[in-house]
Amino acid sequence: MSSAELMKKVVSLCKRRGFVFQSSEIYGGLKSAYDYGPLGVELKRNLMSAWWRDMVHKREDVVGLDASIVMHPRVWEASGHLAGFSDPLVDCKVCKERFRADKAPRVLPGDEVTLIFPDKGAAKVAEELVAKQFGVTLARRDKELAGARAERGYVCPNCGSPYLSDERQFNLMFKSSLGPTDPLGEVAQAIEGGALSGLSGRELRAKLEELTKPPAVYLRPETAQAMFVQFVNIQQSMSLKVPFGIAQMGKSFRNEITVEHFIFRSCEFEQMEMEFFCEPGTDDHWMQYWVEQRMAWWQKFANDKTKFKLRPHEPDELAHYAKGCFDIEYDYPWGWGELEGIANRTDYDLGKHAEHSGQKLDYFDAENKKRYVPYVIEPAAGATRGVLVYLLDAYTEEEVETPRGDKETRVVLRLHPELAPIKVGVFPLVKKDGMPELARKVVQRFFERGINAKYDEQHAIGKRYRRHDEIGTPWGLTIDHQSLEDGTITIRDRDTMAQRRIAIDGAVEEIEGLLRAAR
Amino acid sequence: MSSAELMKKVVSLCKRRGFVFQSSEIYGGLKSAYDYGPLGVELKRNLMSAWWRDMVHKREDVVGLDASIVMHPRVWEASGHLAGFSDPLVDCKVCKERFRADKAPRVLPGDEVTLIFPDKGAAKVAEELVAKQFGVTLARRDKELAGARAERGYVCPNCGSPYLSDERQFNLMFKSSLGPTDPLGEVAQAIEGGALSGLSGRELRAKLEELTKPPAVYLRPETAQAMFVQFVNIQQSMSLKVPFGIAQMGKSFRNEITVEHFIFRSCEFEQMEMEFFCEPGTDDHWMQYWVEQRMAWWQKFANDKTKFKLRPHEPDELAHYAKGCFDIEYDYPWGWGELEGIANRTDYDLGKHAEHSGQKLDYFDAENKKRYVPYVIEPAAGATRGVLVYLLDAYTEEEVETPRGDKETRVVLRLHPELAPIKVGVFPLVKKDGMPELARKVVQRFFERGINAKYDEQHAIGKRYRRHDEIGTPWGLTIDHQSLEDGTITIRDRDTMAQRRIAIDGAVEEIEGLLRAAR
Repeated sequence: MSSAELMKKVVSLCKRRGFVFQSSEIYGGLKSAYDYGPLGVELKRNLMSAWWRDMVHKREDVVGLDASIVMHPRVWEASGHLAGFSDPLVDCKVCKERFRADKAPRVLPGDEVTLIFPDKGAAKVAEELVAKQFGVTLARRDKELAGARAERGYVCPNCGSPYLSDERQFNLMFKSSLGPTDPLGEVAQAIEGGALSGLSGRELRAKLEELTKPPAVYLRPETAQAMFVQFVNIQQSMSLKVPFGIAQMGKSFRNEITVEHFIFRSCEFEQMEMEFFCEPGTDDHWMQYWVEQRMAWWQKFANDKTKFKLRPHEPDELAHYAKGCFDIEYDYPWGWGELEGIANRTDYDLGKHAEHSGQKLDYFDAENKKRYVPYVIEPAAGATRGVLVYLLDAYTEEEVETPRGDKETRVVLRLHPELAPIKVGVFPLVKKDGMPELARKVVQRFFERGINAKYDEQHAIGKRYRRHDEIGTPWGLTIDHQSLEDGTITIRDRDTMAQRRIAIDGAVEEIEGLLRAAR
Repeated sequence: MSSAELMKKVVSLCKRRGFVFQSSEIYGGLKSAYDYGPLGVELKRNLMSAWWRDMVHKREDVVGLDASIVMHPRVWEASGHLAGFSDPLVDCKVCKERFRADKAPRVLPGDEVTLIFPDKGAAKVAEELVAKQFGVTLARRDKELAGARAERGYVCPNCGSPYLSDERQFNLMFKSSLGPTDPLGEVAQAIEGGALSGLSGRELRAKLEELTKPPAVYLRPETAQAMFVQFVNIQQSMSLKVPFGIAQMGKSFRNEITVEHFIFRSCEFEQMEMEFFCEPGTDDHWMQYWVEQRMAWWQKFANDKTKFKLRPHEPDELAHYAKGCFDIEYDYPWGWGELEGIANRTDYDLGKHAEHSGQKLDYFDAENKKRYVPYVIEPAAGATRGVLVYLLDAYTEEEVETPRGDKETRVVLRLHPELAPIKVGVFPLVKKDGMPELARKVVQRFFERGINAKYDEQHAIGKRYRRHDEIGTPWGLTIDHQSLEDGTITIRDRDTMAQRRIAIDGAVEEIEGLLRAAR
């Protein structure tokens, strides 16, 4: 199975079996937004709960936070997101494509470039447009236009045109406003009152900004800033001693122009971030520590551990505030890409928020009688990316023999038992003779122990096994006639398909043991 | 303790002990946004997990969903939120207060009304403003202005003035835009190009709407709509048979002008909603069923079950799509208010989305060979309101005797064990003689069973008990000298303060048993 095939099959399985749907599909879908269906929501919850347990509950030195998505606008002023979190965008005046200048195909100013269109007709329309708007006659041959001259260091990535708008910086944050406002009402009033007449260019723009600006708020582009802003509240209310961490999971929003690879990059996504505050001078040690911890964590749940690697950032790709950064990368079907970044953010963020808020954001070490601004090591992981990684890691097809001796393809989602949406399927062999009643009793016993079990009586038993293989259910328990006689049940393993009989009364303990062993 | 005192004390405890902080507090706070601190996030997670377990996992007939917050704008067109989800707002021309016309104090047009200000100075300023702007001379006496005439059926709720702006409908949805856009750039271009000159009133307004409109998206004001929009995807991928439900938990956003009572009403909040699809004609039965289920669910976790009541909606307060609705109300410190609403939404939503999307959103009953659009019963609960309800329900103060014989006040948060942020505190009596090591071993055993335990060695043991009483930890385990000798440990009950010795090796099972019994 090629990489491209794997991706296609995972996306198809996601929709077919209720893991991930496109948002608002009946309305043609919303670009880059996804809904997690009945099984996807369980997988995502399991992944995020495992992170929370390992990063917060199990540690004496980390506590949790769940902050609002909409924060005070000055947070983003201090963090630098308002000024700097933007992409340089350009519009192609020929094909109208809007693209990122810094990612566009490079040429040299003055070079002759060729424009390429999907078909002859489009090329003809473009030829006329260029002649009329720019007074340039290009040479058309089939669907190409030759003879254009590049003016800048790049051309349109869609048609190759050098006829481009100015570069404009577009901030990646979603903007909204808090409180009932009517910015257009203000603009309309100003125009009617003549307050804008005679203005133009920068002046007009500034006035419009002013009229519409006051109540602007932003959807957070990362969960991280709340940990800095609430640093003192949390440290004091919990009597925490440095080193300690604050962890948060939740949604973040980025108005990306390039959304790609299914749930890998989307405008609305989920993060799992932790800010670990430590004494300056100990930051290199903690950086090393967290890099190792996080790498081991991701590998723990994977079948193929070689598909994860660490990549230190080159000095020229480091954020201006970072002293160092490692990416944990995964070998996606389209190549290596980020899954988590671990950065040494130094005292940059606490310093900036102290400066902008006028509040003291430092720490007093009572034992050693010293006051300092802690350094921060930040392991920042993509939760929705994690879901994709484990789906890719788990998807397998194998040829098996049917009871009749034919060959057929078995699709198995070899998800780690802790991540599997359903831990155990409970199947009455037939829908009678008291088997459904007994099966439902077994299911209830699992719920009493907090284990997600699923009763399933639809279709023949072989079909039910296959269905649960495909959604990653690690174990199946079947109640048959013998169960009614001797109180035993068969347990089937998803990966090996091996079956054995165990006592019904010991079934919950058996599965608990297997779950513990898998951890 | 009066109701007002109780509220004040809960809010204070929330901040002091790390349950709830105001968002962006160091920047002066953001109106109506809250951050859940280390203990608050656990309480909220526990509440929401209990809902998920009882509403999704434990039921064969309900599945989960986690949809994107930003949905296709046509979703809100179909649901009626774009046209109808708005409040009529009015500005007072005297004191500048913006308020809801439908909630303002009623008067009769033509009535003489009196304006009241905080002080003499403000009254004087208002007197001059009214004289200048409206040519009316009012009679000032101290901080009041008499002699004004009401024009409409209401006056300003702040100062009592009848000098008001027109009513404007303000939509409660947070608006943003998807994709990099520059609406002001478009407006500036239009003004410079003269495209708006000569326009005024409605025409100008419409043109501005058009220029800035195309990519508008909205933050969902309720989680419900995704269940209708994904109805077919979910029903088919999971082979579900009506009746069945789709449940979702998550954030919703409403641009409320009146935010009040701490986390009771805020612009960003969390919901737990379920849409239960059933055959028309069975809807009254299911309505009754869910009303009973939900009422029992809320009461199960409460100390005072009399503070919950059911209130059927009067015919005139029913939403236009609803056939019936019951509110589960709680007796908050300011009076009875909503905690959950259970509505019979009929086939309104599926019908509307089918109409607007052109897709079939119905169900084929294969057994009885009939096709129909299901009716929907919706139990829609406030998760953040639930957090407030259980904090209010749990907060108690009692007078106890200290070991020295003095009286002191003990604050106890009598949270249901399932909701308690920490289930068990594990305390070494002293920080030596191997007690910390043993205590940490005990903590690890709890984590192996998924129980949130907390190691705590700070301060004297009595102080630690009080600290954990205040945050609702139901049980404390103390390792003392005897523990090292005979392998026993004391277990202390939060509510009764009774202590007894149990075997360390049986501690996890003991707590598991107590947790099960509490359920």
